Amino acid sequence: MCGIFGVYNHKDTAKLTFLGLHALQHRGQEAVGIAVSDGYEIKVAHSEGLVMNAFNEKQLDKDLKGSFAIGHVRYSTSGKSNPSNIQPFVAHYFAGSFAVAHNGNLVNEREIREELEKEGAIFHTTSDTEVFIHLIARAGKNPPSINVRLHPNDEEFLPLLFSSLEKVKGAYSLLILRENQLIAVRDIFGFRPLVLGKNKSGSLFLASETCALDIVDAEYLRDIKPGEVLVIDSVGMRSYFPLGFTEKSQKCIFEYVYFSRPDSKIFGDWVYSIRKEMGKNLAREKPIDADVVVPVLDSGLLAAKGYSEESGIPLEIGLIRNHYIGRSFIQPIQEIRDLSVKLKLNPVRQVIEGKRVILIDDSLVRGTTAKKIVNMLRYAGAKEIHFLISSPPVISPCYYGIDTPTKEELIASKKSIEEIKNEIGVDTLHYLSLEGMINAANVHRQKGFCTACFTEEYPIL
Amino acid sequence: MCGIFGVYNHKDTAKLTFLGLHALQHRGQEAVGIAVSDGYEIKVAHSEGLVMNAFNEKQLDKDLKGSFAIGHVRYSTSGKSNPSNIQPFVAHYFAGSFAVAHNGNLVNEREIREELEKEGAIFHTTSDTEVFIHLIARAGKNPPSINVRLHPNDEEFLPLLFSSLEKVKGAYSLLILRENQLIAVRDIFGFRPLVLGKNKSGSLFLASETCALDIVDAEYLRDIKPGEVLVIDSVGMRSYFPLGFTEKSQKCIFEYVYFSRPDSKIFGDWVYSIRKEMGKNLAREKPIDADVVVPVLDSGLLAAKGYSEESGIPLEIGLIRNHYIGRSFIQPIQEIRDLSVKLKLNPVRQVIEGKRVILIDDSLVRGTTAKKIVNMLRYAGAKEIHFLISSPPVISPCYYGIDTPTKEELIASKKSIEEIKNEIGVDTLHYLSLEGMINAANVHRQKGFCTACFTEEYPIL
Amino acid sequence: MCGIFGVYNHKDTAKLTFLGLHALQHRGQEAVGIAVSDGYEIKVAHSEGLVMNAFNEKQLDKDLKGSFAIGHVRYSTSGKSNPSNIQPFVAHYFAGSFAVAHNGNLVNEREIREELEKEGAIFHTTSDTEVFIHLIARAGKNPPSINVRLHPNDEEFLPLLFSSLEKVKGAYSLLILRENQLIAVRDIFGFRPLVLGKNKSGSLFLASETCALDIVDAEYLRDIKPGEVLVIDSVGMRSYFPLGFTEKSQKCIFEYVYFSRPDSKIFGDWVYSIRKEMGKNLAREKPIDADVVVPVLDSGLLAAKGYSEESGIPLEIGLIRNHYIGRSFIQPIQEIRDLSVKLKLNPVRQVIEGKRVILIDDSLVRGTTAKKIVNMLRYAGAKEIHFLISSPPVISPCYYGIDTPTKEELIASKKSIEEIKNEIGVDTLHYLSLEGMINAANVHRQKGFCTACFTEEYPIL
Amino acid sequence: MCGIFGVYNHKDTAKLTFLGLHALQHRGQEAVGIAVSDGYEIKVAHSEGLVMNAFNEKQLDKDLKGSFAIGHVRYSTSGKSNPSNIQPFVAHYFAGSFAVAHNGNLVNEREIREELEKEGAIFHTTSDTEVFIHLIARAGKNPPSINVRLHPNDEEFLPLLFSSLEKVKGAYSLLILRENQLIAVRDIFGFRPLVLGKNKSGSLFLASETCALDIVDAEYLRDIKPGEVLVIDSVGMRSYFPLGFTEKSQKCIFEYVYFSRPDSKIFGDWVYSIRKEMGKNLAREKPIDADVVVPVLDSGLLAAKGYSEESGIPLEIGLIRNHYIGRSFIQPIQEIRDLSVKLKLNPVRQVIEGKRVILIDDSLVRGTTAKKIVNMLRYAGAKEIHFLISSPPVISPCYYGIDTPTKEELIASKKSIEEIKNEIGVDTLHYLSLEGMINAANVHRQKGFCTACFTEEYPIL
Repeated sequence: MCGIFGVYNHKDTAKLTFLGLHALQHRGQEAVGIAVSDGYEIKVAHSEGLVMNAFNEKQLDKDLKGSFAIGHVRYSTSGKSNPSNIQPFVAHYFAGSFAVAHNGNLVNEREIREELEKEGAIFHTTSDTEVFIHLIARAGKNPPSINVRLHPNDEEFLPLLFSSLEKVKGAYSLLILRENQLIAVRDIFGFRPLVLGKNKSGSLFLASETCALDIVDAEYLRDIKPGEVLVIDSVGMRSYFPLGFTEKSQKCIFEYVYFSRPDSKIFGDWVYSIRKEMGKNLAREKPIDADVVVPVLDSGLLAAKGYSEESGIPLEIGLIRNHYIGRSFIQPIQEIRDLSVKLKLNPVRQVIEGKRVILIDDSLVRGTTAKKIVNMLRYAGAKEIHFLISSPPVISPCYYGIDTPTKEELIASKKSIEEIKNEIGVDTLHYLSLEGMINAANVHRQKGFCTACFTEEYPIL
Repeated sequence: MCGIFGVYNHKDTAKLTFLGLHALQHRGQEAVGIAVSDGYEIKVAHSEGLVMNAFNEKQLDKDLKGSFAIGHVRYSTSGKSNPSNIQPFVAHYFAGSFAVAHNGNLVNEREIREELEKEGAIFHTTSDTEVFIHLIARAGKNPPSINVRLHPNDEEFLPLLFSSLEKVKGAYSLLILRENQLIAVRDIFGFRPLVLGKNKSGSLFLASETCALDIVDAEYLRDIKPGEVLVIDSVGMRSYFPLGFTEKSQKCIFEYVYFSRPDSKIFGDWVYSIRKEMGKNLAREKPIDADVVVPVLDSGLLAAKGYSEESGIPLEIGLIRNHYIGRSFIQPIQEIRDLSVKLKLNPVRQVIEGKRVILIDDSLVRGTTAKKIVNMLRYAGAKEIHFLISSPPVISPCYYGIDTPTKEELIASKKSIEEIKNEIGVDTLHYLSLEGMINAANVHRQKGFCTACFTEEYPIL
Repeated sequence: MCGIFGVYNHKDTAKLTFLGLHALQHRGQEAVGIAVSDGYEIKVAHSEGLVMNAFNEKQLDKDLKGSFAIGHVRYSTSGKSNPSNIQPFVAHYFAGSFAVAHNGNLVNEREIREELEKEGAIFHTTSDTEVFIHLIARAGKNPPSINVRLHPNDEEFLPLLFSSLEKVKGAYSLLILRENQLIAVRDIFGFRPLVLGKNKSGSLFLASETCALDIVDAEYLRDIKPGEVLVIDSVGMRSYFPLGFTEKSQKCIFEYVYFSRPDSKIFGDWVYSIRKEMGKNLAREKPIDADVVVPVLDSGLLAAKGYSEESGIPLEIGLIRNHYIGRSFIQPIQEIRDLSVKLKLNPVRQVIEGKRVILIDDSLVRGTTAKKIVNMLRYAGAKEIHFLISSPPVISPCYYGIDTPTKEELIASKKSIEEIKNEIGVDTLHYLSLEGMINAANVHRQKGFCTACFTEEYPIL
Repeated sequence: MCGIFGVYNHKDTAKLTFLGLHALQHRGQEAVGIAVSDGYEIKVAHSEGLVMNAFNEKQLDKDLKGSFAIGHVRYSTSGKSNPSNIQPFVAHYFAGSFAVAHNGNLVNEREIREELEKEGAIFHTTSDTEVFIHLIARAGKNPPSINVRLHPNDEEFLPLLFSSLEKVKGAYSLLILRENQLIAVRDIFGFRPLVLGKNKSGSLFLASETCALDIVDAEYLRDIKPGEVLVIDSVGMRSYFPLGFTEKSQKCIFEYVYFSRPDSKIFGDWVYSIRKEMGKNLAREKPIDADVVVPVLDSGLLAAKGYSEESGIPLEIGLIRNHYIGRSFIQPIQEIRDLSVKLKLNPVRQVIEGKRVILIDDSLVRGTTAKKIVNMLRYAGAKEIHFLISSPPVISPCYYGIDTPTKEELIASKKSIEEIKNEIGVDTLHYLSLEGMINAANVHRQKGFCTACFTEEYPIL
C-alpha cells in the first residue's frame, strides 16, 4: 500500500507534490519522500510520519527547488520500517542520476537480489524497489538490444529501463525522475492504478488516484495503460509498450472495495458508486428484517448507504469515530472492555438501544476488531446484530502490493462462516458473493480484475 | 471550550482520566492536564497537544499513581496559550493542597484579580481559573460565616469554597481535587454540562459529557444540578446549594448545535436526535427542490440527515474529509484555489457534477470556509447550491466559555442575509429560526437555554 | 551556586545578558533565564541547560527586545530542579511588574513561607527567592514606615523592598528589574560577590564576577557594598543602606578557594594570585621531597602552580582532561575501573610512571573522586602519591548559597585525616591550615570572611 | 581527521567501543557510529554529534549486543556532512556482511568511483570510504590471484580485500568487521596511527591512539605496521603484507604538533614530551627578553611549558578557557570586540597588564583567531606581545586525512612572515624551523615523516 505522485513543469513543484501526497495519505502513513529536479540535479527529502508534518516551508521552497518532481507515501509492503527504505530512491549511475517511486510489489525480488549480489552489487535497503535501480545501472555495461524504435532523447536511458522491466515480475506502478524527464511505468497486468492529469497552465501530473489531481486543480486526462512506459520531457509525451500487451488485465479489485478514496476515479470508474453498488448487491443477496443500518466508519459507510437505499431500512450513524487519535499506545486496563476499539469508536446508545441492527463493513480480515465492535454494540443495548460484509471472505494474502496479514492471521482462511459468526458473536454473518462484488465493480463489463485475496487464483507467482 | 473529567476511587485512576479526556478531546485540543491524589499528596502532569500524545505509560502508571483524579482538556477561552496556563492548577495553601479544573468563563474575573493584586496576591497565569484558587486560599484568614449546615468532613474547606463562589460571576463547571475528596460544582445557571456516572465496582465519575462515561464503562447516573456543590469522599456523597436556585436555567444551546458529541446525553437529552431534529425543522421551514443533500463533514452530518429524512431528498457524502491533518501550515500557492479548505475536504465530483445541491452545516461563524467550500463545489460542477444552516445567525460573542470570534469577525453581525448569500456565492442561504432551534432542543419543554450568541440577550454580564 | 547579571541602558540588552551569563556559566549549569524591560513591559525567557544552547537569535533579537535586563544561571541550591523554579521570577503586583534574580540562600525561608501561606499566599515554586516576591507584593497593603529619605522615583517601590529585607535572614545578592529601574541589593554580611561596571557608551552592568564585565567590554567600577541597595534609573544612581552596616563582613572564602573564575576580581582582589598564594602557603606548610607536582584539572591548577614555584619541584600536566563531556550517563562496566572519573580525566603515563607525585586539588569534599584519581595514578605507575589540598577540611554544609553535600556526605566530618589518607590510598595527605588559607585571601588584611564550612562557625542561622 | 576503535572478544563490546570513541573524540566531533557483530549478524548505530550524547543505555546494551565491534568518530574530510556519510559503513555482499571504519583519505577516489559507476555500481554516500566497499564486493566476481599464502579462514575475504588495496592510493588506517573477524589495515606509508592493545582477560583492541586503550584498561602491545593487514579471529592473529614494504614511512608529523592527545603514545613515542621539546627548540631558536610565557589553551600549553623550562621565563595561565561552549552561534554585536574568541577565552588581566608577553601556540593556520587573541591581550594591558609558533608555517593543504583549509585560506601561503606579523599586530612573530620540529619529533632518529603541509612535498598524489 503506497501512493505515488509526479509533476512535470511547475515552478512550485515540491509544494504540489506535497499536496498530491497529502491527498494520497490514506495509501500510506508510515513515511514520505519527495525528489525534485531543477534540470541539472536531483534533490531528495525524506521523513517518517504524515506528509503534513514531514516538511517545512524552507524545504519546500528552497531545498527542493525545481520544475519536475516525484513523491511517495509508504505503508511498508516489502522492506522493514527503517529510514533508508523511504522512497523515492535516488541513484547516481554512470550517465547521471535518477529517482524512483514505486507502488506495488515484485514477486521475484529475492532471486534478482541474490544474482546481483553475486555480481558485486551492494544493496542499501531491504526494499524490492532497489532492484529496479541496480538493474538499470548494471544494464549500462551491456546495453541490451531493443526492438522498439526510440526517440533520440530516449536512446540512452530507455534501453536500460526496458532491460530491467524484462527481468522483474510482479506489480508495479512506477514513477522515474531523471534530470530532464519524468517517466511513468505500469506493469502489463495493471495491478495498481496510475492516472495522468493536466492543469490549466499545461503542467502534467501523475498520481495513484484522481483525488490527488483534484487538490492541485488538475483535470483527469486518462489512465496510464497496463504495460505502458510514458516519457514526458521538453519535446512532449511518448508512449512505449516494451513488453507488449496482455489480453486480460488484473486490476486490484480491493482498490474498489476498500483501498482507494471514494472521491477518486480509478481504472476508469468512480469508486463512490461502485462501493455503494456493492452495498446494494448485498441488500439484494441478503435482505434482513431490521430497524437500522449502521456502518463501521469510515470504511463501511458507502456500502451501508447502498444497503439502506436498496432495502429501505434507515441508515443511522450508530458508531461515532474519534478523530483525535495520536501516537500513544495504551496497555489493557482491568475492567475496561474492548479498549483499543473504544479509543476510536463509540456507539450512539440512542440509535442502538433496543434495536435490530444491520452492521456493515467493507471487508473482514482478522476479525479481532469486529468482535470488539459487536461486543460494544451489545453492551449499548442492541437487540439483534446482523453483520454484513460488502466483499467475499479474504482467504489469502496479496503479493502485489497490499499489506495483508499472513494466511494464518486471516480469519476466513481457517474458519467457516458459521465459526466466524459464532466467534464474533452476531446473529447473522453474510459476505457479498464474488459475483456480487465483481458485477458492482465491472461497470462497463470489460475489465479483468485480480481477486487473488478472495480466490487464491494468483495471476503471477 | 474545555472538557473536564474526574474519578473517585479507582486504582488506575490516571489511565481512566486519560481515557475520559480522550473522549472529550473535541472540547479542546490545545493542552491537557491530569492531577491525581493518592490520599496524601497531589501530583500533576501537563502537556500541550492531544491527550493521546501527552503522556507515556510510565507517567500514567508511576508518576500519577493514586485513587482520585481530575483532568482537563483546553481550548483556550481566557488566558493566552502558554504552558503555565494548562489546567488543572494545583495550589498549596495553609491547610494542604487542592487542584482545580474549570470549564466555563467568569465575567468578573478582571475586577476580582485587580482587587486581589491590591492585597498582595501574585498571579502566575492569565487564566480566570486562578481567581478561584486565590479566593479560596485567602478566605482562610477570615473564614466566612456560612448558613449551610456542613458535614464535619466539609467544615474546613467548604466555607472557603462557598465564600469564593459568592464572589465570582459567570459560567463554571468545576472539579476540585483535595487529598481525600473530589468536589464538583456547577454555576446556578448551569451554562456548561456536567454529569455523574458510576461503574460496576462503584467508582464514581464526573464528566462534561456522557461519551466520557462510555469509554470507562460507567453508567450515567444524573446531571450535576445548576448551583450544586457535590462532595465525594470516603463517607459518601453530599450535595449543597450554597447560592440557592434560579428559576430559569441558562443551558448553552450551542452545545446541542455544535459543541457536544452526538453520542452524548447532556442536559438530560441526547444530542444525536436533537441535532437531527434541527435538520428536520430546517426542512419544514425551507423546503427546496433539489437533487441531493450534502453535509459539511462532520459538523453538518446529522442536520443533513434530518433534512434528507424530512424532505425525501437523498443524502450523499459529496465532500470527503481527509483525516490526516498534521501540524504543518502551508502558504498560498499560485494557481491553487481554496488551499486551506482543500487540505481537509474534497468534493466527490460524481455526486456533485450537474446536480442541484443542498449544502448543510450546523452554523456559520466567519463565513470564510463556507465561501471556499462553495467555490470548490462550483468547480466540481454543481448546478445550484442551496446553503442551509441548522441554527440562527451568530451575531454576538459568547462570554460563558465558548471561544467565538469577536463581534467584528462574525459575518452575521455586520451583514444582512442577502449580503452574506452574495458573498458566499450561493443560490439560497437560509438559517434555522430561533424557535426552530429551541423547539428541537427543548425536548421536554421545560428547559431554559442561553441563546446569547444568536440574540445578544446575555443572562449575566 | 548561582550567577547573576544585569544591564542598564543598552539596545542589545538581551544579547549582552546572554554573554554575561555565558561568562558566569561556571556558577550554574542547570538552568538559565533572562528578563528584559522595554520601559513598559517585562518579558522573560527561561531554559534548562547551558546558556549557549538556551536561546536562539530570534528570542534575543525580537522576543526579548528592551533596554534593561537581568539574568540568572542556576545550580539549584534551594528548590528542586523543575522548570517553574528557573529565575528570574516575574511578578505582577498592584503597581506593575518586577523581576528578581537571586544569588545566595535565605535561612528563614521556611518560617516566612508558612506565615505567608496562612495569610492566603499561593506559592508556585519551591525556591526561597519567591519569598522576596510575596513579601514585596504584600507590603503594599500596609506600607511600612521607613526612616530613610527617598528620592521621589523610589517612593513607591523601595518601602516595599525595604520592608521585605527587614524580614529575610541569610545571604543574598539580588538584582531586581522594574519597568524603568534596575536595583541591586547585597545582604549586610556581603556573603556573595556583586560588582558594578560601565562600558564606553555609559551602559551600566551588574555581575557576580568581573569576568562577566570583560566579555561585554565593560570596566570594573566597584563592588556593591554589603547592605547596599543601589537604584539605577533615568535620573542616575542612588545608594541606600536601609539595614545599616555591620562591622565584620562575612565574605565567602570558598569563592576564592574554588568557586569564582581565576580571571575575576571579587571582593576587591584577584582570584588568580590568591589561589596561587594558597598553593605557596601549602608549600611553606608542607614541603615534600618529590619529582613532580600534578594538578587535578582545572580546579587544582593554580594552587599546584603556586606549590611548584615555591618548592622548585616541576609542575607537569599529569592528568589530561577530556572536554567533550555530554549528557550521557553510563552504568558501571565490569572490568573497567574508575569509569566515572575516566570519562573526564586520563593520566599521562610518561609523566607519572616511576615518579614521586605531589597531587594537588583545591578542596576535598566527598573524597570519592579523589580515590578514583589516586587509583588511576597508581595504575599508571606512580611510585609515591602525596595529596595536598589548598584549603582546610570541609566539615560542615554551607547555608548561604553553595550547594555542598550534607554533613553526612562530607568525608572530613566523619573521619580523621589519617583515616581519609588510608581510604583514599595516598602516602601523604595534607590540608592547608585555616590561617594559611585566610592569609592568602586577606591580601590587604582588612576583610572579614565566612569560613563556616571549615569551622562550623555560622554567622547567622 | 577521524578516530577509529575496535574490540575483539568482549561481552560489553558496544560499551567499550563507546568509551574508546569518547577518548578519541578530539579526532572528530561531527558524527559517531558503532558496528557490532554477535558472530552471526552485524548491527550498526549512527548519530550526529558527540559520543556521549549519541547512544542510550538500551542501544549499547540491547541493540548492539555482540562480541566484536568497530567504531568511528568523524570530522568530515571527504564527503559532505550528511547522515548517510556516518561510518562505519555496512555492506551486504554475496558472502555475507562487513563493516568498514576508515581514518585517512584516498587520493584516487574520484577515478575509481567513475570507473565503478561505469560498471553499474551505485554509490550511496559521497565518502571515499565507500570505494573500499565496492572494490571488495566487486572483486568477488573475478577473484584475483594472490601470491600470499593464506590461512584457510582468510581464503574467502582477503583476496577481495587485497585486490581492493592494490587499486586505492592514499592514506588509510582501516578497521573491518566481519561476522567473525576483526581486520586492521594500515597503508604502506603509515600516514595515520593505529595501535594494538590487550586487556587482562585477553580481549584485543585497536585504536587510533593509546589514550583509547587507557580508558578500557588495556595495555599497549604495538603499532600496526605500515602496509600490515592484521586478521583477528578465533584461531588467533595473523599478519600479511600484501603490498610489500616501503623504505621510508610518511608518518603525519601534525599528529605530534597538534592532532593527537598529549597522553597518547603514537608512532611509538609519547606526544607529551615531543610537544614540550618543540617548545624547548623554540626557546633555543628564539630567545626573547620577556616577563611571562602565556599559552593559547589548550593547544599551546605544552610548547609553552617547554619554552618556559628552557628559557626560565615563568609560565602563567594568562588566558582562561570557558568550557561551557554549546551549539549556539551568535551574530556580531555592535561595540563588542572579538566576540567569537571571547566566547571561548578571556585574558587574566592580573597576569597580562603591563607585561612583556610571550604568547605561544602550536600552529598558525588562518590567523583570524590569533589576531583577535592578540587584540584582546592588548586591551588587557599587555606591553609587548611576542608570538611564537611551535611548528613551521602551514603553506599547503593536507590530502591524507586532515581537514586543513584550502591553500587560499592558509595565511602563510600568501603572506610573508613580516606581513603576517603586521596583520596580527605583534611585536615578534617566530615559527619553529622545520629541523627544529623534526628533531623534536624524531626521538630515535629513525622515522620518516610526512611534512607536506609545511613543505608541499607530497609523498603521493
